[in-house]
Amino acid sequence: MEILGLDIGGANLKAIKLSVSNGKTHVKEVIREYFPVWILGKNGVVEGLRKLKESVNPSPNYVVSTTMTAELSDLFRNKSEGVRFIVGTVEEVFSDASRRFYVNVKSKLVEYSEAYKSPLEIAAANWAASAWLISKKLRNCIFIDIGSTSTTIVPIINGKISVQGYTDPEKLVYGELVYLGVLRTNICSIVNKVPYKGLFARLSSEKFALSGDVCLVLGKIGVKDYTTETADGRGRGIRECLDRLSRVPCADNEILNDYEILEIARYVYESMVFRVFETLTQVRSRIASLGYNPSTFKVCTAGLGSFLAKEAAKRAGFKDVIDVSGIYGKKISHILPAYAAALMALEVLGK
Amino acid sequence: MEILGLDIGGANLKAIKLSVSNGKTHVKEVIREYFPVWILGKNGVVEGLRKLKESVNPSPNYVVSTTMTAELSDLFRNKSEGVRFIVGTVEEVFSDASRRFYVNVKSKLVEYSEAYKSPLEIAAANWAASAWLISKKLRNCIFIDIGSTSTTIVPIINGKISVQGYTDPEKLVYGELVYLGVLRTNICSIVNKVPYKGLFARLSSEKFALSGDVCLVLGKIGVKDYTTETADGRGRGIRECLDRLSRVPCADNEILNDYEILEIARYVYESMVFRVFETLTQVRSRIASLGYNPSTFKVCTAGLGSFLAKEAAKRAGFKDVIDVSGIYGKKISHILPAYAAALMALEVLGK
Repeated sequence: MEILGLDIGGANLKAIKLSVSNGKTHVKEVIREYFPVWILGKNGVVEGLRKLKESVNPSPNYVVSTTMTAELSDLFRNKSEGVRFIVGTVEEVFSDASRRFYVNVKSKLVEYSEAYKSPLEIAAANWAASAWLISKKLRNCIFIDIGSTSTTIVPIINGKISVQGYTDPEKLVYGELVYLGVLRTNICSIVNKVPYKGLFARLSSEKFALSGDVCLVLGKIGVKDYTTETADGRGRGIRECLDRLSRVPCADNEILNDYEILEIARYVYESMVFRVFETLTQVRSRIASLGYNPSTFKVCTAGLGSFLAKEAAKRAGFKDVIDVSGIYGKKISHILPAYAAALMALEVLGK
Repeated sequence: MEILGLDIGGANLKAIKLSVSNGKTHVKEVIREYFPVWILGKNGVVEGLRKLKESVNPSPNYVVSTTMTAELSDLFRNKSEGVRFIVGTVEEVFSDASRRFYVNVKSKLVEYSEAYKSPLEIAAANWAASAWLISKKLRNCIFIDIGSTSTTIVPIINGKISVQGYTDPEKLVYGELVYLGVLRTNICSIVNKVPYKGLFARLSSEKFALSGDVCLVLGKIGVKDYTTETADGRGRGIRECLDRLSRVPCADNEILNDYEILEIARYVYESMVFRVFETLTQVRSRIASLGYNPSTFKVCTAGLGSFLAKEAAKRAGFKDVIDVSGIYGKKISHILPAYAAALMALEVLGK
């Protein structure tokens, strides 16, 4: 049989096809594509999932297991509407599947009627899929997933997922979500000033430059990693990234030379590391309050922003930091929630 | 002949005695003692300098060269009064010296009448002595001196001291002074919240704990380095430091366990590194605006907080970071402005 794992994000669509025979699992297909829900609109979402299905071409009797965050998009009036729309679309597009599962925030799989009845339990649950997977491997661990848009932090204590927040706003409160990623984050949401010719300048609040520009000019990511649209629709080369960054303090590439622009990038990057570090200390302080020494916990990083997670974890006092790609390989680590959702289905089906 | 170099700080008194014969210089004595001017009072300052002279016991015909920052103490109504008091005291206590010099902010030595006439040119000039010395060794360099109380940053470009600020407030504006040190800084002046049982707590503004407590519990300094009075007058052991830190969010050692307190320390320490990093990017951005690549500049660190300077410099993008003790030895590096003042006198005297 085949299992299709889906992670329908607000900015990226991730999928994996596993085939299972004689108790052995094989990865048949891995897909990660830019999927800007707020641009695509509802029809675009339906169309995108149809195309995905065509390209994956599952064999009869396949099972679909879905996790999502796209319901947060302002395409939808609220999360419930978003979840119901996505669930409805999956039910329709994959109507020929033998079973259709949805991951909830308790790391359980539910089917259509329950997902429709309690949509908030399905919203933003992709972390619950990934954390479920990691908790099988590492008993005391902080899982940190930094993607294009956001940072998820999940403590696993004694083999159990031990979060305080089950919704995005709760996670923002408890330090389990930082709305900061390595591609799509507007610079003016990270810092409120940048170094400028020996002083500091306050910032424009336009979307002139993104965290992707910072990470690229500092060599943290390559051009091929820059998989979102740029702030000005221009290219992804170093020159274009520097040009965009120069606009953050309302300057341009004639007013600032490249060395000056690089200082802006460095300042923003360190502020990003500090933001993640700060959130980690919050989570560590809870672990400490339970009587554990947080420095003995492992850290497992995932996502395109793994480099940022590692740096922040080291500063927070963690000694043992591994990347999830060291466990599952690089390809799967980039679509981890989809893979986890698929494996959860395997477990439910007793395969 | 003998030269006595003095650095009369607000918190520490530093001195060096050099003997010079046949063009060769020998270090005869190095003194560094806690000298809390605001506690000692004017009489205590006079008395302290008298005792210092007794203990150093200079031979006839000696020369004194003095730099200072003690005039900032609120013992004095303003800097002019402070400088004139200190200069007057030096003139009196060391009246048997053949010459008495004072370092000014242009890295020149002046004598009594000029110091008395233009006291603001003498105020807080110890950086000008150290930077003068470093500029003889390193053409393109940032000199970073982190002491118990404050951080001084001096850019040296093409062998010339290239600062924008000549007074403390100007230096605070241009990123050449950070009022942050590794012993005496009140925690609530560094951060405005600390991690607390999975959340963040705002802070008491009492002087409950100091940066020295943070650096000690994290192993950045040893008990013997903790050469200032503690916030509560109690001891300098790890236990006492942890106890003091627990009070910062109005808790105590019954409400917080040691792991929880250590998280507070980590958060404050990273905030200290960030503060110095931030100021370095400001100075770097000025260097960049002059067309230089700041990453090619060396960094020379000095003072008890050299470890903090190194960490911040690395994050700011500097590759080549050396400690001044690598040039002058550890003992002298801790009293660098006094040593530099002495050597400036040697140069003026043509020895």
